[in-house]
Amino acid sequence: MSCPFCEDKIKESVFAESDNFRAIYNLAPILPGHSLIIPKKHVISLLDLSDLGLSEMIIFAKETTQILLEAFNSVSFNWSVQDSEAAGQTVAHLHMHIVPRYTDDLPDPGDWYPKINNNLNEILDSDSRDKLSQDQLEKIVAKLKRFGKDRV
Amino acid sequence: MSCPFCEDKIKESVFAESDNFRAIYNLAPILPGHSLIIPKKHVISLLDLSDLGLSEMIIFAKETTQILLEAFNSVSFNWSVQDSEAAGQTVAHLHMHIVPRYTDDLPDPGDWYPKINNNLNEILDSDSRDKLSQDQLEKIVAKLKRFGKDRV
Repeated sequence: MSCPFCEDKIKESVFAESDNFRAIYNLAPILPGHSLIIPKKHVISLLDLSDLGLSEMIIFAKETTQILLEAFNSVSFNWSVQDSEAAGQTVAHLHMHIVPRYTDDLPDPGDWYPKINNNLNEILDSDSRDKLSQDQLEKIVAKLKRFGKDRV
Repeated sequence: MSCPFCEDKIKESVFAESDNFRAIYNLAPILPGHSLIIPKKHVISLLDLSDLGLSEMIIFAKETTQILLEAFNSVSFNWSVQDSEAAGQTVAHLHMHIVPRYTDDLPDPGDWYPKINNNLNEILDSDSRDKLSQDQLEKIVAKLKRFGKDRV
């Protein structure tokens, strides 16, 4: 089975990168700003990363979070990893969710959880949920790239 | 308001530590093995950690996850952070959830989400949910300490 995070098309969603990781905007965000950190190589589990790889990933995740908080004018965020199928991992390529949050963005702050859980299934299936158009995706990726550049 | 993660009593729940972080067993686990990584100092947000601190945290989280997977005979796990109140953070001291998972441990793999969300509230309030007794906590912390030592 082909991996959607290894396909060349994924590069259209990339708004920041480090040596070994990419930040991609989620095609069907559960909330504005919902993005993913993924390794460039096809790594399945966090446990397959070296200590150096883990360090690079978390520092890059922090930088990406700062870009998102600035671009979406937020100070709160969720991070989440589902590692292997029994934990709810639906794409067998390591990915960490980053979701900027606002007071009262959902009826209860914890309501992001079930949304995340169904998110990737819905990207891969033909969806019940709203996906961004190509045009919307290009605009948001361009905006986030600018925010990233301004931070350097 | 006093911070439950800064109180001396928290040390009874510690089963592993690095220079600046502790792994504590959750007093009211949502599933067997549910633990938290917390900084020893009172840090509120991931964004308040230095790059060095973040690296130490994620490497320690990986080691703690390996202890938990071994002790609870699992290969799957969830990691989650809720950073600041709008994101669902109920204790204003940075904490990362680690939850070992099994196939069919919950009706749906994503059902851990709403459970986590209510978890810390329920530890702090007088509970609707089952809490471990002092004896149960001591036994599990001692077991996890042994698993940690065996790995060294």
